[in-house]
Amino acid sequence: MSHNRQVRVAARPEAIPQPEHFEIVDGTRPEIEAGQILVRNKFLSVEPAMRGWLVDRNNYSEPVAIGAVMRSLAVGEVRESQDSRYQPGDIVLGWFGWQEWAAEDADKVILKFEEQGLSPSLALGVVGLTGVTALLALEKVALPRPGDVVLVSTAAGSVGSAVGQIVKLMDCRAVGIAGGAQKVRQCLDEFGFDAAIDYRSDDLEGAIAAACPDGLDIYFDNTAGAISDAVLRHLAIGARVVICGTASIQRWDPAPTGPRVERILLTRRASMQGFIVLDHMAEFPAASRRLAAWVREGKLKFREEIIDGIEHCAHSIADLYAGRNQGKRIIRI
Amino acid sequence: MSHNRQVRVAARPEAIPQPEHFEIVDGTRPEIEAGQILVRNKFLSVEPAMRGWLVDRNNYSEPVAIGAVMRSLAVGEVRESQDSRYQPGDIVLGWFGWQEWAAEDADKVILKFEEQGLSPSLALGVVGLTGVTALLALEKVALPRPGDVVLVSTAAGSVGSAVGQIVKLMDCRAVGIAGGAQKVRQCLDEFGFDAAIDYRSDDLEGAIAAACPDGLDIYFDNTAGAISDAVLRHLAIGARVVICGTASIQRWDPAPTGPRVERILLTRRASMQGFIVLDHMAEFPAASRRLAAWVREGKLKFREEIIDGIEHCAHSIADLYAGRNQGKRIIRI
Repeated sequence: MSHNRQVRVAARPEAIPQPEHFEIVDGTRPEIEAGQILVRNKFLSVEPAMRGWLVDRNNYSEPVAIGAVMRSLAVGEVRESQDSRYQPGDIVLGWFGWQEWAAEDADKVILKFEEQGLSPSLALGVVGLTGVTALLALEKVALPRPGDVVLVSTAAGSVGSAVGQIVKLMDCRAVGIAGGAQKVRQCLDEFGFDAAIDYRSDDLEGAIAAACPDGLDIYFDNTAGAISDAVLRHLAIGARVVICGTASIQRWDPAPTGPRVERILLTRRASMQGFIVLDHMAEFPAASRRLAAWVREGKLKFREEIIDGIEHCAHSIADLYAGRNQGKRIIRI
Repeated sequence: MSHNRQVRVAARPEAIPQPEHFEIVDGTRPEIEAGQILVRNKFLSVEPAMRGWLVDRNNYSEPVAIGAVMRSLAVGEVRESQDSRYQPGDIVLGWFGWQEWAAEDADKVILKFEEQGLSPSLALGVVGLTGVTALLALEKVALPRPGDVVLVSTAAGSVGSAVGQIVKLMDCRAVGIAGGAQKVRQCLDEFGFDAAIDYRSDDLEGAIAAACPDGLDIYFDNTAGAISDAVLRHLAIGARVVICGTASIQRWDPAPTGPRVERILLTRRASMQGFIVLDHMAEFPAASRRLAAWVREGKLKFREEIIDGIEHCAHSIADLYAGRNQGKRIIRI
């Protein structure tokens, strides 16, 4: 019997998942059936969204069951195939979970990774979930026009940094909000934002007003909370707010309170709209190819932080919420 | 010198305007210049939005100055014209203010009222600002599809009752929220809603769930506040929320707090968007004609409450916020 190390859900977290909510189990390598592929995972993803996949309320997907392998995107190599579209050696992206081996229906593969000269790990980041989220949320909800002022929160993060660089390619002004002087410098020097704001600043509103004297046309919101409260007061007429994540809020049941937004939305004729990339997976491969071209041309920079060893999965979600990552966190196994 | 009774702003209200914020003044009948018309007002409008026009913050238009004639839509008869498009005897809708006589640029006339068999007062209501608001907010923001479940607050009011009837014409299910048993009955019996809910009910959420077991596709929000908090928890995936008014909130500076909406918008991929009909005045005449046709065909019912005498302007805004009106409040002079 062949081994298959797996990270399973041991307990349901009430808020940010911690190491004690997971356990590493020595499972069994699965057998494949007709229409399936056997994948040896190489890179496992860690997402802020995993917090939501683990709670049993207020989310958009079925919660991962206690005792199940943690749901995750992963990039791996096809080792066996009973589907003519995939051959051993192919590199694929899919919902293969936090485990070494996965048997999956070939229909469910999200992307066959064929980008020459790029690391397959990027299929979890800038040419994968985070880059595609940035690109499609902009094109489907935020609708940037040349000259728009675009503010993004968690601007040094993998979604935020992609948003900033993509809107620059669309001739917008990119303003980032990030936590701490180091991330602010990274936004400016590495990702080419026109301005960057430390949300820990004494006068966040003053800093927003200084960076966006005519207000914001787009707010790409990855945080919610107090940062958003300050930003919303600076929306321009007709502004679009994309709700892509709520990283600053620890728990949503019950929902925390904040200043009501109705009057701002009314007087500014502004919109707020939620975006989940999982609704748009049919467009994932084409978006990924566009992002890969920008990466090759040097127009889209990224940071990834690769950590070796499946034992690092369990603490990594909490690391993201604490800002302890330096770029897209990936577990290599 | 001819007289011109006017209602002027005497003091700036902090919240809902009260009689003491206005004064009646015996002004002078104006003279017209080239390109202008002289209008003898017949019907003056009273709008919930006047609260916002009077505060000097957080609104979408310049506040009315202290000492100025109160800004208002009015319907009147052209008595003199220095513009070839208008002749004495024409009935026109425009920003003629709370006064007997107005001299105005002919370019600023919103509508020449030519609907045979309909009272010109309707140009302030069901075929005017309130009906056009309902129709254009639906068509530009809410985007109803056949079979959608549409919930509207202040459902017995002039905007709300139009929304309910128009979405029925679009093959949607119309659910109203109103205050008190009498208005609930009016929604059902007079305006043809499929269901109606008293927001003063002990179990508002239970009533919403019972009326909309599969959730809401559209929430047409005229109130904000606790009613909206309950409604938003029942949004279906992809729901659209139109923010058209905030009648339940007394003051916005500072904004009152409520449950944060970001997580609901994200998990339901829902949108909230503000709508102000004043952005769409070029489309007003065509929308008005469509509404007038529905009124004639008996498909669009309305209530108007006509009160005689300019001295009733000053208390009428507060009456609306207290629910003391029975239909669109109009002052006849």
